[in-house]
Amino acid sequence: MTRPERLVVVGGDAAGMSAAALARRRKPAEALEVLAFERGNYTSYAACGLPYYVSDDVDDIARLVARSPEEHRRRGVDVRIEHEVVGIDLDARTVTVVNRNEGAELVEHFDQLVVATGATPIRPDLPGVDARGVHGIQTIYDGVALREHVDAHRHASQRAVIVGGGYIGLEMAEALHRRGLPVTMIEAGPQPMATLDPDMGAIVAGAVRRLGIELRTDTPCEGFEVDANGHVRAVQTPAGSIPADLVVLGIGARPNSTLARDAGLAVGATGGITTDRRMATSAEGVWAAGDCVETFHLVSRRPVAIALGTHANKQGRVVAINATGGYETFRGVIGTAVTKVCEYEIGRTGLTEREATAAGFVFDAERIDSTTRASYFPGAHQITVKMLAERGTGRIIGAQVIGREGAAKRIDVLAAGVWNEMTVEEFWQLDLGYAPPFSPVWDPTLVAAWNLRG
Amino acid sequence: MTRPERLVVVGGDAAGMSAAALARRRKPAEALEVLAFERGNYTSYAACGLPYYVSDDVDDIARLVARSPEEHRRRGVDVRIEHEVVGIDLDARTVTVVNRNEGAELVEHFDQLVVATGATPIRPDLPGVDARGVHGIQTIYDGVALREHVDAHRHASQRAVIVGGGYIGLEMAEALHRRGLPVTMIEAGPQPMATLDPDMGAIVAGAVRRLGIELRTDTPCEGFEVDANGHVRAVQTPAGSIPADLVVLGIGARPNSTLARDAGLAVGATGGITTDRRMATSAEGVWAAGDCVETFHLVSRRPVAIALGTHANKQGRVVAINATGGYETFRGVIGTAVTKVCEYEIGRTGLTEREATAAGFVFDAERIDSTTRASYFPGAHQITVKMLAERGTGRIIGAQVIGREGAAKRIDVLAAGVWNEMTVEEFWQLDLGYAPPFSPVWDPTLVAAWNLRG
Repeated sequence: MTRPERLVVVGGDAAGMSAAALARRRKPAEALEVLAFERGNYTSYAACGLPYYVSDDVDDIARLVARSPEEHRRRGVDVRIEHEVVGIDLDARTVTVVNRNEGAELVEHFDQLVVATGATPIRPDLPGVDARGVHGIQTIYDGVALREHVDAHRHASQRAVIVGGGYIGLEMAEALHRRGLPVTMIEAGPQPMATLDPDMGAIVAGAVRRLGIELRTDTPCEGFEVDANGHVRAVQTPAGSIPADLVVLGIGARPNSTLARDAGLAVGATGGITTDRRMATSAEGVWAAGDCVETFHLVSRRPVAIALGTHANKQGRVVAINATGGYETFRGVIGTAVTKVCEYEIGRTGLTEREATAAGFVFDAERIDSTTRASYFPGAHQITVKMLAERGTGRIIGAQVIGREGAAKRIDVLAAGVWNEMTVEEFWQLDLGYAPPFSPVWDPTLVAAWNLRG
Repeated sequence: MTRPERLVVVGGDAAGMSAAALARRRKPAEALEVLAFERGNYTSYAACGLPYYVSDDVDDIARLVARSPEEHRRRGVDVRIEHEVVGIDLDARTVTVVNRNEGAELVEHFDQLVVATGATPIRPDLPGVDARGVHGIQTIYDGVALREHVDAHRHASQRAVIVGGGYIGLEMAEALHRRGLPVTMIEAGPQPMATLDPDMGAIVAGAVRRLGIELRTDTPCEGFEVDANGHVRAVQTPAGSIPADLVVLGIGARPNSTLARDAGLAVGATGGITTDRRMATSAEGVWAAGDCVETFHLVSRRPVAIALGTHANKQGRVVAINATGGYETFRGVIGTAVTKVCEYEIGRTGLTEREATAAGFVFDAERIDSTTRASYFPGAHQITVKMLAERGTGRIIGAQVIGREGAAKRIDVLAAGVWNEMTVEEFWQLDLGYAPPFSPVWDPTLVAAWNLRG
C-alpha cells in the first residue's frame, strides 16, 4: 500500500481549518493525511466576535470557537496547536515548525500546502506604541487581554481612546462605551468609516457623537505617553494629548505574508499572497486562503486584500476542493461589509465614489432617506441609502446604507445587484418582499434605483 | 390653442394614483389633463396595513393614506371621490360615471384610459356568507368595520374565526389574537400558507399553534349559521360548527375585471386583464395596472394574478411613462411575498415545489436550519431556509424562509438570485454582509446554496 498524500495547513483559523475540514471529508484517511499547524491555542474562532466578548454580549470566550482542536481531531484532522511554521522549503517540500511549548524545531514533509497565516492589526511605528494598554484586536488573546483589563479596572475610572474610525474602531468604541468607559475616538481623516463616502461618513459621525462617544476627526495619532510602569497614559495628537488608560488600535490589518514571501511565493502590491482563481499560489501544489491573500475585486477589477471571515471560509473550501482533485474557483469579492454601533447599522458594497473614480468609472450617485418599515408601522426607523451607477449604462457599481434596526442586511440585495451587474433601470423593478412590518411599499433600495434612472 | 389631452384613471388606489401622479409630473397641465375617479372616499391607501389598524398597531386610519384626494388635487390631479365608473365605451372614448353621492350619471371623454379597478376578496357562495360579522379585508371600509366591531365588543367575549390560512388570514389572526380575542383558523388544505411547500407550511402551523391560535387544517368552510338579527353565529365545517361572533374571510382576492371585460378588453384565464409588457390592454390608448391585471411570472413564464401593492405601484409608474410618450416595460414578477405572525416571519420567492413541477421543472430541494445572527450573539434566532434549484443547471427557481426577527427580508437576496437566474454554484459565493449581529459567518442563504451544489 502506498503512503497517503499529505496536505499540510499553516494556520488554524477560518481559512485553514475550512480547507482542512472539507479536504478531510472529500478524501479518506488512507488516501489523504491532513496535518494543520496553529501557533496559538485556538482553532476556527470568530475574531469578528471579539468586540462582543469585550462588551460582555458574549460571556464566554469559548463561545467564539466554532470548532476546537479536539473536535477537529475527532473528525480526522491532525491539528497541532502551539506549533508555529517558521519556514517553507518549496524544493524539499517541507515546512519547519517550532513547538512553542517545548521550543523544539521539527521539519515536516508536505505533498500539498495551504498557507492560511491570516492578518495582523497594523501597529504604527510611533513612540510608545508597545506600551502596555495599547491593544490591537485580531487574535483571541487580544480580546481576552482587553476584556481582562476592563474587568480588572471596572471600579476605577478608565478612559479609552480608539485610534482609527473603521469597523474595528467603531465596534470597540461601542463595546467600551457600553461597558461604561468614557470613549474618545480619533480619526486621521475628515470622517470615520473611510470605507464609506464622506456624506455617509458624516451620518456615522453624527450617530457616534449622539451616543456620547467623543469623536475627533482630522486628528492623527502621533504617539503615546507612557508612565513609569510602562503603561500608556495618553495619546498624542497635533491638537494635544488625550489622557488614556486604554488604547485600541483600529487602523486596519496587514496580510501575514512574510512566511510566504520568504519561501519565494509571489506576493502582490497589496501585501497579500497572489493566487489564481483556484487559490493556487505561484508554486505548484501550494494554495493560499483567507486574510493573508489578495483577491480579485469584481467591480474595480483590481487586487484587494480584505480581512474578513466570510471570504476566508469560502476560500478555504475552494482550496479543499482543488487540493483534492476537484475544480472550484473563488469568484472574487465586491467589498461588502456591515457593522453596527449601538443601534446604528452600517453597510456598504461595491465601490465608493473615490474607489469608483480610481477605477476609471464615471458615475451618478443618489442618496435617499426612507424608512425600514412602512412609515405608519411601529418601529419604523429612518434609513439612508446611497447608490452609485455607471454613467450611460446605469450599472450599479456601489451602494451604502445607514439606519437603525433592519437597515444593515438590506446591503445584501444591493450586493446581489452589484454582483449581477444589474442596472438601475432593472433594479427598481426587483420583486422584493413587501409587507408593512418589513418595508415601505417602495423598498428604500428600489427608491434609490428609481431616482437614479435616466 | 389646442385642448389638452385627457388621461382618465379608473380607481384611486396604488396603481391608479401612481399612474396619475407620475403622468402629471411628466407633462404640464396645458398638454395633459389627468382625471381620476374613485368610488370610495379614500385615495392611495395601504390596504396591506389594515391588519395593523385592526390590531391597534396603527391607531389612526388616516395614517394608512399615503396621499389624500386633496393632496392629489393640490398636485394637479383632478380626483373625484365617490364617483364610480360603471361603463367604458371604447368606440366613443367615454366612460360612464355615477356620482354616488348624488346618484347622478355623467359621461366623460378620454383620450387615454387607465383601468386600475383593483381586486375584491373572494366571498364564497355559501349559505350565510352575507351575514353581518362576516368580513372581507380589502378596502379601508372593511378595516374600519372590523375594528369598530372589535372596539365595540371589547368587554364582551368575542370569538373570531378566520377562514383561510393565507397571508391575510394569518395577519388577521395575529391582529385579533393580540386584541385578546380567542381565534380559530380553519384551512381547507393540510397546512396554512399554501403558497409555501408543505414542509415549510408545517413550521408555520406549529408557530401559529404555539401562539395560542387554534388551527384546524383539512377543514373547509361549508357555510355560516346566522342568528335572528342577521348576525353570524357559527362557521359550519364537516367536523361540526365553530361558534363565531366575528369571521374574517382570508381566501384570496379576485381581479375586478368585469368593467374591462364588459367594455371588450381582453381578460386572461386568471381573471386578470391582459396587458402587454408596456401595460397596454388590447385596446389602443387603454392601459391597466395593479390588482386587476394579470402579469408575467418570470420563472414559470405563465400569467399570474397577484394582488400586491408593490406591483401595483410599479405598474402604475410604467403606465404613466408609456401614456406620456415614454417607453417603459414592466418586467414581471417572481412571486416574492413576506408576512409576519407575531414574532414569526415568513417569506417566499420564485416557485414552490408544486408550482415548479407544474411549470415543467425537475429540481432538487434543500432545507437548512441556521441562525439569524452569529449563534453566540444575543438575539440569534433559528431560521429555516428552503431552496429549489433546477436539476442539471443548478439555477435557483424558488426559496422560502421562516424564522424570527431578521428572517423575512432575507428573502430579498434570494429573490435577487431567482430574478437574475443565478445558479447555486455561484450563489454560495455571493459577497453578502457579514458581522456577528447580523449573520453567521455563513449566511443561511449561502448555506442552502452550498448544500444544493452538485
